[in-house]
Amino acid sequence: MYELLEKIDNPSDVKKLNKEELNELAQELRNFMLETVSKNGGHFASNFGSVELTLALLKSFNFDEDKIIFDVGHQSYPYKILTGRRKDFSTLRQYNGISGFPKTEESKYDFFNTGHSSTSISACLGMAKARDIQLKNYNVIAVIGDGALTGGVAYEGLNDLGFSKTKMIVILNDNQMSIAPNVGGLSDYLSKIRVNKRYNEFKHNVQNSLNERNWFLRLLKKIKNSVKSLFVPTMFFEDLGVRYIGPLDGHNISEMTEIFEKVKEIEEPVVVHIVTKKGKGYKFAEENPDKFHGISAFDPETGEVLNKSSKLTYSKAFGNAIVNIAKDNKNVVAITAAMRDGTGLKQFAEKYPNRFFDVGIAEQHAVSFAAGLATQGLQPVFAVYSTFLQRGFDEVIQDVCMQNLPVVFMIDRAGLVGNDGETHQGVFDISYLSMIPNLTILAPKCVGEVELLLKYALSLKTPVAIRYPRGGDSIELKPIHKVEAPKWEIVSKGEKVALVATGKMVGQAMKAKEILKDENINPMVVNATFIKPLDTAMIRRLVREQYNIITLEDNVAIGGFGSLVLKVLTNLKFKRTFRELAFKDRYISHGSIDELFKQEKMDVDEIVKLTKKLNNSKHN
Amino acid sequence: MYELLEKIDNPSDVKKLNKEELNELAQELRNFMLETVSKNGGHFASNFGSVELTLALLKSFNFDEDKIIFDVGHQSYPYKILTGRRKDFSTLRQYNGISGFPKTEESKYDFFNTGHSSTSISACLGMAKARDIQLKNYNVIAVIGDGALTGGVAYEGLNDLGFSKTKMIVILNDNQMSIAPNVGGLSDYLSKIRVNKRYNEFKHNVQNSLNERNWFLRLLKKIKNSVKSLFVPTMFFEDLGVRYIGPLDGHNISEMTEIFEKVKEIEEPVVVHIVTKKGKGYKFAEENPDKFHGISAFDPETGEVLNKSSKLTYSKAFGNAIVNIAKDNKNVVAITAAMRDGTGLKQFAEKYPNRFFDVGIAEQHAVSFAAGLATQGLQPVFAVYSTFLQRGFDEVIQDVCMQNLPVVFMIDRAGLVGNDGETHQGVFDISYLSMIPNLTILAPKCVGEVELLLKYALSLKTPVAIRYPRGGDSIELKPIHKVEAPKWEIVSKGEKVALVATGKMVGQAMKAKEILKDENINPMVVNATFIKPLDTAMIRRLVREQYNIITLEDNVAIGGFGSLVLKVLTNLKFKRTFRELAFKDRYISHGSIDELFKQEKMDVDEIVKLTKKLNNSKHN
Repeated sequence: MYELLEKIDNPSDVKKLNKEELNELAQELRNFMLETVSKNGGHFASNFGSVELTLALLKSFNFDEDKIIFDVGHQSYPYKILTGRRKDFSTLRQYNGISGFPKTEESKYDFFNTGHSSTSISACLGMAKARDIQLKNYNVIAVIGDGALTGGVAYEGLNDLGFSKTKMIVILNDNQMSIAPNVGGLSDYLSKIRVNKRYNEFKHNVQNSLNERNWFLRLLKKIKNSVKSLFVPTMFFEDLGVRYIGPLDGHNISEMTEIFEKVKEIEEPVVVHIVTKKGKGYKFAEENPDKFHGISAFDPETGEVLNKSSKLTYSKAFGNAIVNIAKDNKNVVAITAAMRDGTGLKQFAEKYPNRFFDVGIAEQHAVSFAAGLATQGLQPVFAVYSTFLQRGFDEVIQDVCMQNLPVVFMIDRAGLVGNDGETHQGVFDISYLSMIPNLTILAPKCVGEVELLLKYALSLKTPVAIRYPRGGDSIELKPIHKVEAPKWEIVSKGEKVALVATGKMVGQAMKAKEILKDENINPMVVNATFIKPLDTAMIRRLVREQYNIITLEDNVAIGGFGSLVLKVLTNLKFKRTFRELAFKDRYISHGSIDELFKQEKMDVDEIVKLTKKLNNSKHN
Repeated sequence: MYELLEKIDNPSDVKKLNKEELNELAQELRNFMLETVSKNGGHFASNFGSVELTLALLKSFNFDEDKIIFDVGHQSYPYKILTGRRKDFSTLRQYNGISGFPKTEESKYDFFNTGHSSTSISACLGMAKARDIQLKNYNVIAVIGDGALTGGVAYEGLNDLGFSKTKMIVILNDNQMSIAPNVGGLSDYLSKIRVNKRYNEFKHNVQNSLNERNWFLRLLKKIKNSVKSLFVPTMFFEDLGVRYIGPLDGHNISEMTEIFEKVKEIEEPVVVHIVTKKGKGYKFAEENPDKFHGISAFDPETGEVLNKSSKLTYSKAFGNAIVNIAKDNKNVVAITAAMRDGTGLKQFAEKYPNRFFDVGIAEQHAVSFAAGLATQGLQPVFAVYSTFLQRGFDEVIQDVCMQNLPVVFMIDRAGLVGNDGETHQGVFDISYLSMIPNLTILAPKCVGEVELLLKYALSLKTPVAIRYPRGGDSIELKPIHKVEAPKWEIVSKGEKVALVATGKMVGQAMKAKEILKDENINPMVVNATFIKPLDTAMIRRLVREQYNIITLEDNVAIGGFGSLVLKVLTNLKFKRTFRELAFKDRYISHGSIDELFKQEKMDVDEIVKLTKKLNNSKHN
């Protein structure tokens, strides 16, 4: 079935193949990936787009010496399969299986862990400088998509690269969109290059001179000296001091291989611009690359997602809420950093195009931009994944909170995200946000509270963050109907032990309570809607009534919700037992959310165990 | 003495002046600034460079309607003086005086607080979009230096601006250096523009056609359609979709005024490139703009800094240490983000130019770049101010610590920085770093420990942060001579109360102890060299020996050192009294460091008071 692929155990096996075999291997790779990704889910379209590029890279370079970094990393499946991980590929993104992103622990052919966008040029420049200092001689290659180029750190890297003139190759894998269709002036610019006829003629001439010796360097010199501007209409990269070559057909292995062989000889930084098609070779993905960017298990015959849950997700609940609210409140505007659909803003974007802003993968800009909007009386809502807001951290402190501006952060994918693994877990936000002055932090305990909390946040006219998990609810809870600062809700009365939970953990606490019923253990369950400020009146009551207290949060323990509660308890001279259930001080790899909760000893069983223990503990 | 200046009470007064008067006013402004800054210290060179620009802006625009943001903000003194703050200017950067940076609370003419670099374009774009949504009609102007353009968020903003085509003006104040001489490919590019003869001829033609009606729009059209490339050799801004005009003489008020009047009419984003001289008009600053970037009180006659302290600063101690260490350890390389001198790296840079990297104002890149270097066995040391590392937060989490790479962060200006105020206080780093897995956090209690800790950090081969304050020591302490993880030092034995202090606070604790002697109160003083991990054995001992415990840190309380200690105490069922001395949950404005410690109830007196209280407290 995979006649050629089955013989590829390491990169050198690719080198032995001829042009026809490589093209055949490309087809086998696609079938192979389809088989696994349609079962396990994963990043699809970007990996189908990078098949030929990966083959050309393996043909031209030697990754026993050379180094490569795949930016963001969600286009590295073909590379994984061809660098010794074919047999493990069926475990992709599964608990204890191989990661969906490059991971140095996994293979000596992965040189850097990626997951967040736009860092590859910087990290590669580090490797290249190390090479020069150590007088070594390998190639260093950053593969970066056009979408990732909107991230500021990519530009910081390019700017330094162009200045330092270090030998390094940047492959711009231009699929004309990142996760959502691309935005930004640079994206316009790349389109212009793609369609420029004169430039294509120029490229043609380059191709024709491939056989001439030293053609390339002579050509570069010639271009440089005189007529460059006649052929290349615009020169973004060259302005930064980086040589530009392209655009090449990113599905033509021989064309790429030939150019890569030449590029190796250039002792300067070079950008090679290749044009690929997202989802290439799988009809449904080519037609709908957005749907196939990251996808759950699907039927390979029809392209339809299997077991489509009709459950209301938090993202969708937010999407509905902001559309409702925006009808009456004309000041509400929404911002996304290239995650329109993922954050639930699609409907808003269609309904209120003038009040919707997709700024590209540019979280820092998104935050400062929101601050600017807010100074003029608008009420920006920035919907962003917990892990990606880390990029805008400084701007949240400096631009939004220091000026106490009315920006609402809708923090999606807070807590565990599951199969995307450690680069995407949203387990830090309570810690990095609660230390910021002027910021209110809220969490809905169920999807039914999202709109209420958003309305409340907008009513404050100060900075607010609302954090909520990936997916929807796994237990039905009755939403609160009124928000009163900083009040917590007693979800269920009880005795001896108080489970003070925030967000998703309230449902977990209720499940534990249900299980404990059989043993006549009946903890109180409290929903800490307010993570900051805390409901000190409620804490005072719990102390007065002599509860043992367990805080529950899907955030790391250090600097988390439990830490905040503990301080109040200490000030109140709390004498009973305090425990916190929170993530430990380590990165959490991939797997299903349930598996990971179990692994981290944060699942319902653990809540049951801990509650029992505290229920039976004597006064201390 | 300030004949014209004394009549300027608000921006409209500038509009009344003619060309000659404006030039005279420029001179008066310089004298006036020299008078104050030579007394109070402050940013000098950048403000002397922006005098004519500010006058041209006030002449051309109407800031009762139009909005302006000064990027970084350290070039806004002339603007402050001319917008109603002349009489308060003598209080510049003083406690309760006016801020050294734009501050919306201070004046209706300040539209956005700045302090950290490169956010002005994003915030201005927010204002411009708000204007369009609200169907208003004002101008929005970002003034940004060439140095700030190396920051990724500036590029994210430009990219979005070019795409959105929103009417907005970016004034690129090009003084050919930021704090240190500028780096980056873009900087090279700007130099090329400056010296391009053909382009200057083109500019000359523009000047000559100033009298023709609609000259500008026709000219733009003409340029756009055909011969652009003949005149403008490189097109960075235009590639991003932003119209480019320049370079203009940034000290020629009439030239700038004439162009600004035309630029107002352009319904698209425009970059106006002006060239200025840092320190312009004050000989000593022109000759030595670095020294005069941010300067303490100096003699205006000689340009010599007054009361030059010969005290060894932490920055200098680090600078000496890394030079010593690098001699034997060839793997050590050093990185700065445009703060070579400020962080103490000057000597290293001169001695080891190939192992020294100034990446420009680009903290994200600096961190990922360090990670890349570290993957190849080098040991990068990134010296950075606490407040600016906030910019590289995500990369510290994702690129360095997730891969457990041996990068050392030397965190200078941790704690209070004083007169620069709230945008620069380094009071968050313990909180935002301690939540990151794999990161060790250390603090020297005196300058004599810096080298020892750096050596120890390098020996670990894992990520380490070492935080230390601005300035030097105010009390002499005996350095430790050995670091053993995670051991704390008992600096001084005592009874009843243990002052567990970190970094600079150890000295404060010792001063308090000295005062308390008179009352026969004798607290133990512990130096928590390790902020993470904690010395739990020592904490255990303090619990066993029944001390009341006070933690002392120059960081916010939320998520800080005290929080970490409290958790251990809680687990140990600590029964005595715990208190923490740390900064409250609010931003801290400018003033001297001593004044601010007092204001925040963190000074020695407060330690004395609290120790007394706990010394006399009964068991609880």
